[in-house]
Amino acid sequence: MNKVIECVPNISEGRDTAKVGTIVGVIRRPGVKLLDVESDANHNRSVITFAGEPQAVADAAFDVAKAAVAAIDLTHHTGAHPRMGAVDVIPFIPVSGVTMAECTELAEQVGKRIGDELHVPVYLYAESARVPQRRKLPTIRAGEFEGWATKIKDPEWQPDFGPAERHPTAGCVAVGARNFLIAFNIDLDTSDVTIASKIAKSIRESSGGLINVQAKGIFLEDKQRAQVSMNILNYHTTPLYRVFELVKMEAGRYGVGIVESELIGLAPAQAFMDVASYYLQLPGLSTSALVETRIEES
Amino acid sequence: MNKVIECVPNISEGRDTAKVGTIVGVIRRPGVKLLDVESDANHNRSVITFAGEPQAVADAAFDVAKAAVAAIDLTHHTGAHPRMGAVDVIPFIPVSGVTMAECTELAEQVGKRIGDELHVPVYLYAESARVPQRRKLPTIRAGEFEGWATKIKDPEWQPDFGPAERHPTAGCVAVGARNFLIAFNIDLDTSDVTIASKIAKSIRESSGGLINVQAKGIFLEDKQRAQVSMNILNYHTTPLYRVFELVKMEAGRYGVGIVESELIGLAPAQAFMDVASYYLQLPGLSTSALVETRIEES
Repeated sequence: MNKVIECVPNISEGRDTAKVGTIVGVIRRPGVKLLDVESDANHNRSVITFAGEPQAVADAAFDVAKAAVAAIDLTHHTGAHPRMGAVDVIPFIPVSGVTMAECTELAEQVGKRIGDELHVPVYLYAESARVPQRRKLPTIRAGEFEGWATKIKDPEWQPDFGPAERHPTAGCVAVGARNFLIAFNIDLDTSDVTIASKIAKSIRESSGGLINVQAKGIFLEDKQRAQVSMNILNYHTTPLYRVFELVKMEAGRYGVGIVESELIGLAPAQAFMDVASYYLQLPGLSTSALVETRIEES
Repeated sequence: MNKVIECVPNISEGRDTAKVGTIVGVIRRPGVKLLDVESDANHNRSVITFAGEPQAVADAAFDVAKAAVAAIDLTHHTGAHPRMGAVDVIPFIPVSGVTMAECTELAEQVGKRIGDELHVPVYLYAESARVPQRRKLPTIRAGEFEGWATKIKDPEWQPDFGPAERHPTAGCVAVGARNFLIAFNIDLDTSDVTIASKIAKSIRESSGGLINVQAKGIFLEDKQRAQVSMNILNYHTTPLYRVFELVKMEAGRYGVGIVESELIGLAPAQAFMDVASYYLQLPGLSTSALVETRIEES
């Protein structure tokens, strides 16, 4: 496994599939693989996932921004999801062999190009934020496209790159490095969703549990089972085994067991190496112990 | 992760490093990566490990055989390790995306070429054996180079490929597909090696334990600790977690705990996915859930 990063730009178009197709079409190039496109008509938004070699991914991200700015006019945009730009947010995510600092360098490089060449104001967010109030997307996005015409005049909201005024049709954009998000669910052997909700409350960051974990209890109609549905925002600091064992422990107080767990989408190999390392008491186990990794090292 | 196989030819030269270097030198090509060369002067034998794309690995294996047959004269060979040929054994090992049947096809292809082009008798062994008595290497190798001049006249020992007589200087060779071997050790929190030996006896195939597991108890001088040292010959049928939990359980009867475990060399990613799948109760977890795999799929 060579250096790999993922990029997940969100664009403010989820209804016109031809337009989405045109924008997605600019990604294709050596070293980059398109993994997923999800368009939501209600949100009027598309989430595009691609990954590969860092510089090639960065170049593709800029081209997506350029195509979105050309094709999408926010003055005519409606949708359920909050948004402030034609290309609304561009996160760079380390997958393997790449540090967060390297992803921030790419975010800055792409942000500068978007500002200079597309004349769209750019806010560095998440791990790349230069001030604390720009770490969280909802804080930046407050006011949305419409409100940014005036919000950007506030000295506190001067952009990190690009002009100090909202692009007339493309608004502005948040660009930054963030951790890989793992969507991980655990099914309980009960149909009582209140138990799943109580477990979720006890294990999530927002109410006294593990940092970097979001959790809620839901009821699975088809399986007639309660589930603890989670996002793990940093699998390095808060590994899967710790989340799993804590859910199991909290479930135990209700006399409830675990039926099975579920991964939604993909995860980096190291997330599972950390699991094996814990349970096998095998210190320092990493992807460098894999035959596949050794073969792909250049 | 594309299709990857490993090949580990053993050649009967472990003293003349220039000669070993010449033979190893023929491996280099696109799609193949040399992972390791271990020469043992006492055994007068070298173990060469390389891996990569199946056909490229097969071609490299033939070239190693050709170079070894040209360079090594068994009539002058002495060494502690039993051997029957200049290139003694050529195993093909599935690592990812490849079945055992595909590895057998490659073994047959390379075996046929060695027979036809190098005039060396070839025995298909391990998973590729066509008769049960050719599955195990020691059975084939019995008599060694010297004995093969007459052993090969026995109708039961007609080769699968090549001439029905021993090559005058290069002897004969075993070629076949086998499983990846994982070397896995578990350190106990005791210095009493007799406990490690008793655990080893209870968990290994040869004395009533898990199939495909070889185990022995050893004493680690530097750490003053007893260790259960194991080879897992098929991590698919006999996964790491089962071995680990069984050692832990058997250690418990002596009031002994596990300090840590250790992987010697490399292992395929799926071996650890199976561990995570068990402990996280995540059914069917495989390398196809990895971002790295999705990116490398062609």
